Amino acid sequence: MAKEKKLVEAITSMDEDFAQWYTDVVKKAELIDYTSVKGCMAIKPAGYAIWENIQHELDRRFKETGVQNVYMPMFIPESLLQKEKDHVEGFAPEVAWVTHGGLEPLQERMCVRPTSETLFCDFYARDIQSYRDLPKVYNQWCSVVRWEKTTRPFLRSREFLWQEGHTAHATAEEAEERTIQMLNVYADFCEEVLAIPVIKGRKTDKEKFAGAEATYTIESLMHDGKALQSGTSHNFGDGFAKAFDIQFTDRDNKLKYVHQTSWGMTTRMIGAIIMVHGDNSGLVLPPRIAPVQVDIIPIQQKKPGILEKAAEIEAALKEAGLRVKTDDSDRSPGWKFSEQEMRGIPVRVEMGPKDMEAGQAVVVRRDTREKITVAIENLAAEIPQILDTMQKDMLERARTHRDAHTYVAHNMEEIKDIADNKPGFIKAMWCGDQACEDRLKDEVGITSRCMPFKQEQLSDVCVCCGKPAKKMVYWGKAY
Amino acid sequence: MAKEKKLVEAITSMDEDFAQWYTDVVKKAELIDYTSVKGCMAIKPAGYAIWENIQHELDRRFKETGVQNVYMPMFIPESLLQKEKDHVEGFAPEVAWVTHGGLEPLQERMCVRPTSETLFCDFYARDIQSYRDLPKVYNQWCSVVRWEKTTRPFLRSREFLWQEGHTAHATAEEAEERTIQMLNVYADFCEEVLAIPVIKGRKTDKEKFAGAEATYTIESLMHDGKALQSGTSHNFGDGFAKAFDIQFTDRDNKLKYVHQTSWGMTTRMIGAIIMVHGDNSGLVLPPRIAPVQVDIIPIQQKKPGILEKAAEIEAALKEAGLRVKTDDSDRSPGWKFSEQEMRGIPVRVEMGPKDMEAGQAVVVRRDTREKITVAIENLAAEIPQILDTMQKDMLERARTHRDAHTYVAHNMEEIKDIADNKPGFIKAMWCGDQACEDRLKDEVGITSRCMPFKQEQLSDVCVCCGKPAKKMVYWGKAY
Repeated sequence: MAKEKKLVEAITSMDEDFAQWYTDVVKKAELIDYTSVKGCMAIKPAGYAIWENIQHELDRRFKETGVQNVYMPMFIPESLLQKEKDHVEGFAPEVAWVTHGGLEPLQERMCVRPTSETLFCDFYARDIQSYRDLPKVYNQWCSVVRWEKTTRPFLRSREFLWQEGHTAHATAEEAEERTIQMLNVYADFCEEVLAIPVIKGRKTDKEKFAGAEATYTIESLMHDGKALQSGTSHNFGDGFAKAFDIQFTDRDNKLKYVHQTSWGMTTRMIGAIIMVHGDNSGLVLPPRIAPVQVDIIPIQQKKPGILEKAAEIEAALKEAGLRVKTDDSDRSPGWKFSEQEMRGIPVRVEMGPKDMEAGQAVVVRRDTREKITVAIENLAAEIPQILDTMQKDMLERARTHRDAHTYVAHNMEEIKDIADNKPGFIKAMWCGDQACEDRLKDEVGITSRCMPFKQEQLSDVCVCCGKPAKKMVYWGKAY
Repeated sequence: MAKEKKLVEAITSMDEDFAQWYTDVVKKAELIDYTSVKGCMAIKPAGYAIWENIQHELDRRFKETGVQNVYMPMFIPESLLQKEKDHVEGFAPEVAWVTHGGLEPLQERMCVRPTSETLFCDFYARDIQSYRDLPKVYNQWCSVVRWEKTTRPFLRSREFLWQEGHTAHATAEEAEERTIQMLNVYADFCEEVLAIPVIKGRKTDKEKFAGAEATYTIESLMHDGKALQSGTSHNFGDGFAKAFDIQFTDRDNKLKYVHQTSWGMTTRMIGAIIMVHGDNSGLVLPPRIAPVQVDIIPIQQKKPGILEKAAEIEAALKEAGLRVKTDDSDRSPGWKFSEQEMRGIPVRVEMGPKDMEAGQAVVVRRDTREKITVAIENLAAEIPQILDTMQKDMLERARTHRDAHTYVAHNMEEIKDIADNKPGFIKAMWCGDQACEDRLKDEVGITSRCMPFKQEQLSDVCVCCGKPAKKMVYWGKAY
């Protein structure tokens, strides 16, 4: 069969062409399909199920911190977008404009939200009067549009799915606390659920969000040594509040401006999962985020009793709280193994007539391909442990890879050499001057990823200009 | 306090001005706020939490029937929208057009999806080759845009949230079966969860969806006697498949067109909940959909032990699986009662020092205001039963109201008299001719709601023209 052949064909090796490998995996694991809408993708069931799990995990964590979900319009009238000067400069060049409603031109054109600060500010200006109305800790799940010139599935597309939190507080301290709190929620989520280790830090002024006082970020390293900004949390101070006149009467009866934050995570995390954990056989999903955790593959399934036993195992594993499927299609076991590997299902359970006779099955880990023989009656107890171990090992492996690809540079010669020859993070001191950031971008092709919270004193001078250093910075090439 | 006053102010009486009553409830129960984006609303936490519960309940029911969630782009290139003739005629006059991306005009303008048949067809044309690829049973949760001239919160807004299911099948029979299956899912959901009784039926050709072969609908009756189309399920036959060339190789090795369906339910159901169950004190939420089911209101809460006992009760009720909050704010019990009633929380638990001494509390039902004295240690066992009874009673009451407002007309004189004087459904026979539908709309101001599955033979002749009747139709004024 043509389709069967296509799937078991080797995908491009990641060492040969990482970008092509990525595209192959995204397509062959059936995460997305291209569409007739340039720069926009169709997210298929296997991809969307990952996003549903991300949503579920994040939403639960948000609500534990008091977040409430809301929904704002998808359109922003041009005059509203223009209220905050830095913000409009940052976003206006990359928005999609609606100019006609039905058969008539609009009196004022509107953009499709690239992000919703302006809409939330407009709402808060109406909704907040007193200190009793604070804090507001709102979030929405939606899609946003940014008119990117070059696009790649999950990593950069003209429309993407995300959540955007928008909060308003009575004091600057409380806003800063919330900004850091949400960054920590993202970092814990990435490490605990996605098995992706992250560096927490602050963006330089050059790299911060348009309109923010401070942008905090978590940065992760992909298998090819490129960095991925994985979640950001912004403290706006009272800049937006002043532009939108969001004031409240405080306990002391004085009118004050609120302090605001926003924070977001997107479907690009699906890209991160692929690029951190995937291998030359396809996707490898961390057990906690995998829509299907166990794929039961019966061998010689036409032999009497095999499918019945497989059904028993499936029932027992589901009873144990696992997400399980049985592949009883008429294809060969080899084909089924390839498909399970391509789709990144964390473990498969192989069981044929001889296994059944011996009262056992073989559990194969997707990440290491380790084969573990387990008594059938113990599967429901042991597989959860195997998945836990796999989850921990995946995080550890990603951390080891990242640390092995994190380099230190003391001067321009060293940083050029590393950037040219050793893909990864580069730690280097910086004077705080944007001119040096610009020069590193132009001459070395790297950008500042963040000023990490965990600072180290690598030397006393800026890697670029040699003047006194103020901060250690993580640099890198980024998606 | 100004805010306190505002809330306890009486809302407009529903008998005096139903439309104003609706607007008051929507605003004072804090379900939505108006925005600077004309015709679009901001859904606030209390409103969005209802939508989250609707999503949760529907999504679970969908998945039990094999539905998989996906996500398609929000934009439709004009040429794609135009591929199916009836469909474009139905929707083109009411879409929003994107003409510029970033600073440049688009080569081809795109509309923001008013519905996604064309996008799913484009996708299926690529994705379906063989009978092995069928059926496709996909759904997405998203927002859509229709450029309405007059808007009302939840009932008709330029952007609204919904789910849209889109399926493709090998045979006409399977498509018809799925169409009816999903209509039944909607009907059961409305009755079991929202306590809203519905009439199931088929739309006339005049009222069917643009491009559909058959549209099925569930119709409900609001408190003011107007009808609300509450969910629709469409069978497209192979019309879209031919327009988009969606063919598959069947088992007999022949190329065939697929048969398709689509089905949707929207945030207007929140409007239905308000208009079916609400009263002059505000919202009344059916227990199964209420984000908060129990509001514990301590009386004389500064007396020793009261708040501690309230916390104990809250813990016990949560343990029993209920959604509970305690209002320990510094406002008066009367204010708290009004707020609980305005927000439609199904029951409140009142407990003061004397109750505590007697080891009891008073449970007050929101719908009937019945007061039930319950021993504190029995609250966790009895409140779930009280909520169950309330849920059943609400459905029964809505059904009784609807039946009492369903009339039979045999001729034009009768139907005019009913339409003018008795708001409600009108059952009447119809010849099947669209001219009669047009005349009833123009002269009587009513539209055909559906041809119910449960047909009755009220007479042999059409209510309008007197020619032989083919169908009994439910007629009414609709939102």
